[in-house]
Order: sequence, then C-alpha cells, then structure tokens
Amino acid sequence: MKPSIPKGTRDFTPSEVYLRNFLKEKIKLNFELFGFEPIETPSFEKLEIIGGKYGNDGEQLIFKILSNGEKLSKADLDSFNKQNYHKFANSMSEKALRYDLTVPFSRYVVQHQNEITFPFKRYQIQTVWRADRPQYGRFQEFLQCDADIIGSNSLWQEIELCILYDKIVKDLGLKGVSLRINNRKILYSFSKLLGFENRFNDFTIILDKLDKIKIEGVTNELIKQKFSKDKIQIIKEFMLLEGTNKSKLEKIRKVFKESKISEDGLNEQNFIIDNIEECGGLQSIDLKFDLSLARGLSYYTGTIFELTLPNFPDIGSIGGGGRYDNLTSTFGKENLSGVGISIGFERVLMVLQKFKLFPKDLNNRMQVLIANFGPKTALTCNSILKKLRAKGVKSEFYPDDSKLKKQLSYANSKKIEYVVLLGEEELKKEEFVLKNMNEGTQALFKISRVESVILSKLKKIN
Amino acid sequence: MKPSIPKGTRDFTPSEVYLRNFLKEKIKLNFELFGFEPIETPSFEKLEIIGGKYGNDGEQLIFKILSNGEKLSKADLDSFNKQNYHKFANSMSEKALRYDLTVPFSRYVVQHQNEITFPFKRYQIQTVWRADRPQYGRFQEFLQCDADIIGSNSLWQEIELCILYDKIVKDLGLKGVSLRINNRKILYSFSKLLGFENRFNDFTIILDKLDKIKIEGVTNELIKQKFSKDKIQIIKEFMLLEGTNKSKLEKIRKVFKESKISEDGLNEQNFIIDNIEECGGLQSIDLKFDLSLARGLSYYTGTIFELTLPNFPDIGSIGGGGRYDNLTSTFGKENLSGVGISIGFERVLMVLQKFKLFPKDLNNRMQVLIANFGPKTALTCNSILKKLRAKGVKSEFYPDDSKLKKQLSYANSKKIEYVVLLGEEELKKEEFVLKNMNEGTQALFKISRVESVILSKLKKIN
Repeated sequence: MKPSIPKGTRDFTPSEVYLRNFLKEKIKLNFELFGFEPIETPSFEKLEIIGGKYGNDGEQLIFKILSNGEKLSKADLDSFNKQNYHKFANSMSEKALRYDLTVPFSRYVVQHQNEITFPFKRYQIQTVWRADRPQYGRFQEFLQCDADIIGSNSLWQEIELCILYDKIVKDLGLKGVSLRINNRKILYSFSKLLGFENRFNDFTIILDKLDKIKIEGVTNELIKQKFSKDKIQIIKEFMLLEGTNKSKLEKIRKVFKESKISEDGLNEQNFIIDNIEECGGLQSIDLKFDLSLARGLSYYTGTIFELTLPNFPDIGSIGGGGRYDNLTSTFGKENLSGVGISIGFERVLMVLQKFKLFPKDLNNRMQVLIANFGPKTALTCNSILKKLRAKGVKSEFYPDDSKLKKQLSYANSKKIEYVVLLGEEELKKEEFVLKNMNEGTQALFKISRVESVILSKLKKIN
Repeated sequence: MKPSIPKGTRDFTPSEVYLRNFLKEKIKLNFELFGFEPIETPSFEKLEIIGGKYGNDGEQLIFKILSNGEKLSKADLDSFNKQNYHKFANSMSEKALRYDLTVPFSRYVVQHQNEITFPFKRYQIQTVWRADRPQYGRFQEFLQCDADIIGSNSLWQEIELCILYDKIVKDLGLKGVSLRINNRKILYSFSKLLGFENRFNDFTIILDKLDKIKIEGVTNELIKQKFSKDKIQIIKEFMLLEGTNKSKLEKIRKVFKESKISEDGLNEQNFIIDNIEECGGLQSIDLKFDLSLARGLSYYTGTIFELTLPNFPDIGSIGGGGRYDNLTSTFGKENLSGVGISIGFERVLMVLQKFKLFPKDLNNRMQVLIANFGPKTALTCNSILKKLRAKGVKSEFYPDDSKLKKQLSYANSKKIEYVVLLGEEELKKEEFVLKNMNEGTQALFKISRVESVILSKLKKIN
C-alpha cells in the first residue's frame, strides 16, 4: 500500500515551497516596512487558553493533544458512557493545537505585559490547525499572517492598516481588489435606531451571511427570526446604499442626527476615509464603506475590514480584521484596545497562481551542475565547484559518472541553467564546455576563466 | 492567574525571532548553495507512518492527536481497564505530531517517487515535537534542519556533506568544532573480528554512550552484558587509538587484512578522507576518524557523522547524520540508498549566544520613527512616511500625540535609530529635526530633503 498523509494536509514539493516562500517574504517585508515586529508562539497551548474562545462550532474544530501516561489513567469513563465525548476528550487532554493567531497573541500580551512597550506592533506568520471538513481551498493545516497593534486607540492605526493592505496588494500585482470597511459602532447605532439593539448579535450573525445568501436570503432569515417587516425594509434600503463613501456616510449621518443616535462610529469612519484621501488615497485597492459588512467574530468593537475580489465571489475574502477593545480581558488585562488585519495566505496563493502572477524564474534556484566524467576529472570538477560556491553560485557535482543524457535530464528537472562538461579530453587542454540548458547552446572556455565566465553569464540573467 | 504556556514550549519575542531567523537563513542559504532544494511535510502524519519507527523509548515520546466524534466513541475500554494505556490511546487516535524529519522524508520519497528525479537532494527546516522531560537545552517543540541525498551510492555525497558542515561552521564563526566520522561497516567488521557480530546492535548501543559514561563506563557495561574480558581489552585499545586519521586507518587495516575481514568500510573511509584532503581539506572543522563513534539509530549502514565541540562536552553534539541503505523499504521502496546530515538548531543557537557570535545590529530592524505632534502636522508626517517607505525604509508614525519622552522611549525599546521631529513650529519653516537615538545628537533639515538626508544617514550604518 502506498503511504499517504492525513486528509486536509499537504506535502509541498520544492517548487511549491519556492512559491510559498516568495509570498511569505513579500508579506513579511511589508509588515516590517510598516514597523511590525515578529513574534512566535508555541504550536500548542494549554486547553484552558484555547477552549471556550471560538463558539460551539469552533470548539468542535480544535485538535486536542492526547497526554501520556498518568493523565490517560484519569480518563472520565462516566462521560464516555453518557456519550459526552467532548468532556471525555477534555479529561484526557491538557493541550490543543493553535486554532488561530489572535488568542495566542492575546495570551502572549498579557503574559509578557511587563516586558512589552506599548503600543505593541507585532506580526505573526505561523501555521494553524482546524479539524474542518477539507474542501477546495480549505485545509486542516494552513498558514496565517496577522499584523496587530495593541495598546493605542488612535485611528491612525486603522489608516496604516488600509495603506498596508494596499501596499501588499500592489506588490503582488493583484487587480480588482476591494477593501470593504465598516464600523461595529455604526451597526450598533443602526440597530438602536430600529429598536433591536438587544438583538444586535443575532443581527450581525445574519448580516454576515450576506455574501453567501444575498440580500434576499438575509431578509428571509430576518423574517424567520421575527424581525419586524418594516424594519427589514429599512435595513434592506440602507444595506443597498449606492454612491461614494462620503455620500453614504452623509445619508446615514442625517438619519442618525434626526433620531439623536450616537454618531461616534460615523465620526471614526469619516476620520479614516478622509485622512486616507488626504494622504493620496489607495493605489491598488478600492476602499468601500459598506454598511452590510458585519464580520462573524463577536470581539470586534470598532472598525472592521474585509479584503475581497468582487469579480470572483467564489474565492471569498482574502483578508480581514478590525478593532477589538476587550480581547485581553479574558486573560486578566483590561483596557487594551487593539486593531489588526489578517492575510488569507492560502487563498492569496491560489489567486496568484490562477492569474499567473508569480515571477517566472522563481524555480530557477539552482544555477550550475558540474557533470561527472569519472575519477580522473573528479578532483578538478570539485575544485571548480569550490570556486563557484565561494562566489555564491548555487552549484553541485553530479555524484555518479552516469550517462551524460541522464545527468542533463537531472539538470533539466531541477531547472539548472548551466552545465559544466569537463571530460578527460577537455582536462588535457585545460578547457571545459559550458552548456546553456535553456538555449541548448554550448561553448568552450579555459578552466582558469571558469568563475569569471560563469559569473558574467549568470549576471545577464539575474 | 497569569496565563502561561505548556512546559517545554517557548514564546519567542521579536529579538529572539530575529536571532532564530538569522541562523535559519544561514543554514538555508548554505543548503541551497550545495544544491539542496526545500520540501515541507505536514505537522502531523498518520499514526501508522510514525508508529513503530523510534524504538520503545521513542514511541513513548510521540504526541498523539485526539480524533473527534466517531473515533472517540470507539475508545478501547478493555485496554483501559487492563491499564494498557498505549493501546487505549491508539484506539482513539489516528494521527501524531512529527517526531523527526527523517521518517516523513522517507514517506514523502516513496509517496512521490514517480514525480522525483533521483538522486533527490532535499532539505527540510521544520518543527518537530517530542514529549520529552524538558531540561536545559531540551524542549518539547524544536526546530530541525536536515539535508539528505537519496538515490545514489556515490561517496562524493559524504564528501559534500563534510564540506557543507565546514561551510556552515565557518559562516557562523564557530571555533573548535570537530567532525567525528566513522563507518558502520568498519564497526561491524570489528565485531566480526572479535566474534560477536550477532550482538552487533547491543554493542553499538553501549558504545554510543561513550560520550556520557566514558571508556570506563563502556567497559563496565560490556562486562555486565557478558562480553568477554579479552575482547573488551582489545575494544578499549582500538577505541583509544591516537594519531592521524590515516595512521589509525592503517593500523585497523593491518589487523583486518591478517584476519581476512572485509575492508569495505575502511576503503570507503579512506576514499572520503583522502578526497577531502585532495580538495584542500576542511577550513573550520577538525575531521576526526573515530572508531568509537556508533550513533544510536539502527538504520545507519555506512558512514556516520557527529559534529561536536570537544572543549564543551556539556553541550553534546551539535549535528549528526550518516548513510542509510534501507530507510524507504518500510514504506515499500527497496534499493534507495540515502545519506544526510542534521544541524542541531537549538543547540547551535545556544552556542552562538554563549560565545556572542551573533552580529550586533541584528535587532536594529526598525529604522525611523516619526513623532506625533498632533493633528496639525499629522498629514505632513504621513506624507514623509509614505516617501520613506517607498524607498524601503522601515518606518512608522507614532499613533498618539503623547509626551515626547514617551515617544522617544518607544523608539529606544524598538532600537529605532532615527526619530523625525516635526512640530507646528518646524512645519511653518518647512523644516524637521532628525534625532540620532544612538548618539543622542540632532540636526535641522528642510522637509524637501527628507528622503535624501535619511537615506544617506542609513547608508553610513548599513
């Protein structure tokens, strides 16, 4: 039987790793350009840190780690017999794999609060695990890329994050990207205006489905959940508001003013939108104030973001984030406001592949193969190898004196650009043949000139 | 209660991540310079892949993943009642965290054999997990860095790996490093010479403890295990052989020849040692043929390596490896000989810190802070920020118009080198103050010259 890997996980071949590293590096460089510094947290956390943070659905998707020995002997058979497998599992497990980067980050901030100078700008590019049903573009193990600032209420942070998204999108060459932006305070005031602020959470959860079930689905769901039809009509009207960001904000402001509803959220939204414009606007992203953006996570308290490709709704969002005022309070630290964004690494990767946006020569990492013509020339070949490597040329000596055809096909499979051919005949004349694998051409040179010849050839390409 | 992380795991602060990335990058660059290409495998493998590969002791250290729902309901209570917790655990688990990179690599090679062009040179820098008792320098989660070539018997590979070790050690600035080298075939012939080849494995396991229990401990252990005293005396003599690599090999060769014992291992060892010398020798490593080197893992069949710091025996080995002829056969692929080395990342990191070998300015990643003097100058500050970032300068705008002291102390904590001060007075004169945080000096410049001034200052440093 052929060996295989668990469902929802992936092996990455060298060419796939090159693509992934390229994208990772672009994101990392931009995070650092904007003043974010990297941290890393353990792959698994104590169950008490991770548990109870992701709602009922999320809780089911947490990978628990089975403890050894003693702890196992304390398995709660009573729960097993009652078919309470969740409790049964928890009785044997003390740790769980990271489900996202946000909860570990909050834990980190509280644990290290005395070493941290606030505001703390951190980024984190690490794997997370979810026991989700694998499907197209959804894996059980995948990479997350988060940048957050914690410990400042300044709205300049929101502006920074929009500009950061814009810079990354521009660097990757993505076209047709929208950044939907809203503010949970506006949504809350809106629910107050319609008199159902006590059902605010239900409302945002339904609204969050807009992408999938469209406005008709949302209104049906609201009817089912017994929101009054009059109110649903008003909601629909506001969700479908057209026009510029400013005109939309003005329309809402007017209604709020008349009803004496708090305008805090609107003021925040205006500050962000106006200042981005004053700073020259975004170059590669369409910034779109969108009252229908709700975001699923209940911890958001202010601005919320979602990065999408409106022309490719199947892809879903390729990033998201927002401001949260109380995330660290579950770990005992109050009054730390944070705001952050996440890049959907796996989806962005899919998009870059779909639209062929990766540079062509990304795989061309190996540069020179020195062919093997047996023991009589091996030492000379190895002295060339040494010289090339000293100049930083990625090079190798074929390990066996196999048939040349086999050696050349090896070079092709690794996309090696140049092959040095140095048999006994050449050695006698102190020469070597340099074969260009892309063009299929070859030429004769003196061995003494090997570094300068190869370096000048490589320079032409790189 | 303060939140915390599981024992044996670590959070990494930004400065620790910078150190780790520096070392990772050095290793990666050299692996690639030598023609190795990266692959990545999933964090967890099927239990059937990982199980039964690491001996009884190793088996206990594997982190199993608890499956959800259905599988849990099939927990083997019978085993639980018999206190067979190992079987009980296996009945609820289908997956386990990676214990090393070698077994996943073998699985990868067999699974992808039709896509791979052999010889296959891969490197892998990934996390592994072991439920080991945490102690100084030993963690439950740590990084491994492996480079292997599979699909060629050529001894040039062994030579390459020695030179690769040498290059990495040189680049890191490590002094006093030894590369112990031996060959399992020599050890086997030696056991044949003494007539206990049927106890070869017992012998190597005892011999492998030499570092910890010294030659006295080894001889005591051999006596306890009923090896004959005469033989132990001969073993002792050979293990303590002094002299050059060549002279040691010659002494052994003589004995082997007289007893008509196979000299394969000796020939291999000679080929490697002679050719390394012909290629100019190693620069930063003392290559030491050492008959007492055994390596614990039973899958090695030829050359074995161990990288050590003889003057600091407490640190233990900082790398190791060897040739294995049958590793992929457990997954159904015969006749693939491989050879590889591993770098003990966490230990090398400790050594670099101990001897202060990390470059000084590694933390100086952030370059410019633009201080915040309130709304009247914020837009100008942000236009400067935009210009600096367009030139690749890592820079940020302090989010709040806090007291200058607080802002400067923020810059200090992030080791930011330059602070731009631009208050209302400066703005009127179209000027800004540039403060050098290292020297404590400052000077006035025209805003129009901001990019050129800062770029030229930074160039002096970088």
